[in-house]
Amino acid sequence: MYSDPADYAPAGPDFVYPHSSYMPPSASPFGTVKLGDGDPLTPFYPAIESAFRIPEEEASLPKIPAQSISYDDAWQILSRMGGAVAPASWQGNLNNTYHTGPGLAHPGWKVNVDVNNNNTQTTTYNVVGVITGHEEPDRYVILGNHLDAWLFGGLDPNSGTAAMLELSRVFVHLRNETGWRPRRSLVFCGWGAEEYMAVGSTEWTQQFAKQLSDRAVAYLNVDMALEGNYTLRTMSSPLLTDAVFESAKKIPNPDPAEVMVGRKSVYTTWAARRPDPLQPDTPLLQAIGSGSDYMGFQHNLGIPSMDICYTHDNSTIGEPMYHTLYETFAVVDEIYDKGFHFHSAVAAMWGDLAVVLSESKVLPFSLVSYAAFIKRAQDHIAQRYGDLIRSQNITLKYFTDAGQTFNTSAFIFNKALESLDLKSPLVVRRVNDQLMMVERSFIDPRGLPKQPELNHVITAPSKNDAYSSTAFAGLVDTLADIEEAAEEDRQHLWRTFAEHLAAVTHLLETAAKVLSGDLW
Amino acid sequence: MYSDPADYAPAGPDFVYPHSSYMPPSASPFGTVKLGDGDPLTPFYPAIESAFRIPEEEASLPKIPAQSISYDDAWQILSRMGGAVAPASWQGNLNNTYHTGPGLAHPGWKVNVDVNNNNTQTTTYNVVGVITGHEEPDRYVILGNHLDAWLFGGLDPNSGTAAMLELSRVFVHLRNETGWRPRRSLVFCGWGAEEYMAVGSTEWTQQFAKQLSDRAVAYLNVDMALEGNYTLRTMSSPLLTDAVFESAKKIPNPDPAEVMVGRKSVYTTWAARRPDPLQPDTPLLQAIGSGSDYMGFQHNLGIPSMDICYTHDNSTIGEPMYHTLYETFAVVDEIYDKGFHFHSAVAAMWGDLAVVLSESKVLPFSLVSYAAFIKRAQDHIAQRYGDLIRSQNITLKYFTDAGQTFNTSAFIFNKALESLDLKSPLVVRRVNDQLMMVERSFIDPRGLPKQPELNHVITAPSKNDAYSSTAFAGLVDTLADIEEAAEEDRQHLWRTFAEHLAAVTHLLETAAKVLSGDLW
Repeated sequence: MYSDPADYAPAGPDFVYPHSSYMPPSASPFGTVKLGDGDPLTPFYPAIESAFRIPEEEASLPKIPAQSISYDDAWQILSRMGGAVAPASWQGNLNNTYHTGPGLAHPGWKVNVDVNNNNTQTTTYNVVGVITGHEEPDRYVILGNHLDAWLFGGLDPNSGTAAMLELSRVFVHLRNETGWRPRRSLVFCGWGAEEYMAVGSTEWTQQFAKQLSDRAVAYLNVDMALEGNYTLRTMSSPLLTDAVFESAKKIPNPDPAEVMVGRKSVYTTWAARRPDPLQPDTPLLQAIGSGSDYMGFQHNLGIPSMDICYTHDNSTIGEPMYHTLYETFAVVDEIYDKGFHFHSAVAAMWGDLAVVLSESKVLPFSLVSYAAFIKRAQDHIAQRYGDLIRSQNITLKYFTDAGQTFNTSAFIFNKALESLDLKSPLVVRRVNDQLMMVERSFIDPRGLPKQPELNHVITAPSKNDAYSSTAFAGLVDTLADIEEAAEEDRQHLWRTFAEHLAAVTHLLETAAKVLSGDLW
Repeated sequence: MYSDPADYAPAGPDFVYPHSSYMPPSASPFGTVKLGDGDPLTPFYPAIESAFRIPEEEASLPKIPAQSISYDDAWQILSRMGGAVAPASWQGNLNNTYHTGPGLAHPGWKVNVDVNNNNTQTTTYNVVGVITGHEEPDRYVILGNHLDAWLFGGLDPNSGTAAMLELSRVFVHLRNETGWRPRRSLVFCGWGAEEYMAVGSTEWTQQFAKQLSDRAVAYLNVDMALEGNYTLRTMSSPLLTDAVFESAKKIPNPDPAEVMVGRKSVYTTWAARRPDPLQPDTPLLQAIGSGSDYMGFQHNLGIPSMDICYTHDNSTIGEPMYHTLYETFAVVDEIYDKGFHFHSAVAAMWGDLAVVLSESKVLPFSLVSYAAFIKRAQDHIAQRYGDLIRSQNITLKYFTDAGQTFNTSAFIFNKALESLDLKSPLVVRRVNDQLMMVERSFIDPRGLPKQPELNHVITAPSKNDAYSSTAFAGLVDTLADIEEAAEEDRQHLWRTFAEHLAAVTHLLETAAKVLSGDLW
């Protein structure tokens, strides 16, 4: 595998690092090709001393040796490929015509690859600290970042780790100097082995699943604080929409050029440079998919989660030096963030969110945003697949109605909040418990179709594209499978769809009921 | 199927109903032969309008027609049976030598049976009422009894339903006359279709699983208030041990003969007539297995549950007229409970438990009893199966240690309670939330080995004997299977055992951690 200059060095060979932040010819990005999160030997259960470990041959470990190489090395191979000319959309920017093979252009040529990956079992460590809340020590606002890096980790994760260290220093200082303690506990987590499919955080959420389900208010992740300096990028449960927006409005813009054109906050640049296509005056809040330590929290436990980062302008697919030997402190210090102002902005926003969520009497959860998110996703399914579904005499009515019921419940709940006696600690606890249960409502303990290791029926990532964030992945994946399936395989897929549709509908009704405060 | 007079008319043919409460010759007990609880068309999910219903041919419905008959009718067949003489332990008390068949004694004889069972889908109703708690409306103490009867239901369920109606009348009267409201909400449930494998309560616990998991404090079942007048009989989660004992001590003895010999409370007769063989000065509190509407609460959701009843002296296997046409009001009124004093005692105890659990500031849960229960069950497994387990190089150490850790945590928690500031509503809520989480800790969302529809790893009933109450059924059932399995089948059973042992150990550690108050 290699990264083509078409994707990572769009300004040509002369304008790459160190002359820009584009990918130089000898950079080779590391990564894992394992599928599935967590310790592959302990599916569903924590990798503690007493765990049962499945035999390695049963584990979801890749069987094909994989090696990433630089585009310089890739050119050595690609320029010598035989076979047909590759389609236009497969042609990259290396200085040759791309061929598909099979084989090289001359029968005697061979490629020898030495793969130095080795298979080891080893121990990884999570580092966890807590500032105990003074009113509700049994409610947790959790901040997380990972500690491992493929190489130097200048961006991933050290930009985030620097922010985490600074935040924990500031909070402990505040506590020690002023006696301040948050209303709810603040938990600071440094995760081990994130790069190997989030092993540390996954096993931790499995080990403490019940405590976290019962007590955690939110999970705030920063993997990289920075992978560019163009705009903020967030992925979040819809429940945290207002909290994220309000916080971004408070943080001064770290980009002097943007301040000059009147964009004084992180929010204004974000709204200008990455607007929501559906609501162009609002910044785009991406749905939370796969790819970092929030997965276990959001998709298994139903703890509203988010991840923030300063990102690039999308002229490249990702940050060009990500996971390569070039991802150093120098890149950050000299190219991306001279003076570390963008780092400060992300750390400040992260800290502000932690304070808001741990201090707010009533949790600032965006029920209306969640209802709108659900409505959009339901409309998409109805538009894209409605005819297909009706052809099977399956009705979307209950599903749609349940979304509407949730919307109504959210409205009534918010209205009732206005007249509640928030001086009573038990009244406050009760409404917050209801708010906490909303995201939990979407957790199906029986898992998603074909993805039993994921439980969130709305936000869990699609099995066909884990990084993207398809809402209702279990429904949409099954419909996509039906469209591609042979006639004889469709019947059982429709059965799967109808079963999961009923489960999702039931959970939407549960979320509505939870907010109503009635038991039944 | 029939009930033999050896089991149900032990005093001979002349001393049966109406001369005693023993079974008369023409009584035929009704019952279900279906396996598995709840609506057979909606496994794991609630049977609501939007539910997915599996095809009937996939449902766990019995395929063999079944007919219960009286022992009078059974004699007509058994006295004409051919084949070998049955073993001594199979000989009953009908006036003939029992033969095993095959076939009848004369080749031309035939038995024609008209079976009038028919297969219908129909609707059943639960009736639910609530008295909202004034301090913690979002905490529920739930009382339940079923509404359906096979025939007249003089005992099952009407003895219990009478108690339920009287209790709800009393509580509503109290509220209306005095303004009294309980600290926590009291929920009164009348279940539909209990006799068909607890359909009403199972579907209800599936529909409101998340709310109940989050909010229910305890479930108090009375199926029959009375099936005899000899002694109280209770089945209970170990967590309710103290509450049940303390309540039984408060209730005046309804039996004048017992009062005459100095046994003034329900508790003293119970302790005298049904002592715990392991602690002879204490009454026997039976573990809670299968057989009534508590199943979904206890074994799926981990809500501590109990069932109380006045019972017989065990001279018969069960109440002799149970589920027959003879189980009438007259039996209750003239034989079992002239003046309805035993009914009153059960209703009073049920109501007292409801008040104690809804009013106590700190929930009166018996952590130490639970730890002792776990220890006894662990010792039993080690003694009965220790050599077998060691022969596979599987260690019980982590399992045993986890039980000990739970015991230690319980002790420390109780000690810490003594110095807590119980004037703070949030401190009280926090310790109660910890107490509520103890039973939840033992719920494995992935289910038990070979019983995926059950989740409680300690109290769920054995697959080999659902009515009995084997602790750690998943472990013990698998060990029993291993002993009976052919050599070639043992390896995968040992794998199942080792996997489940690790899961159970993890959940015991979770229960201990929950009490410690620490997150990790």
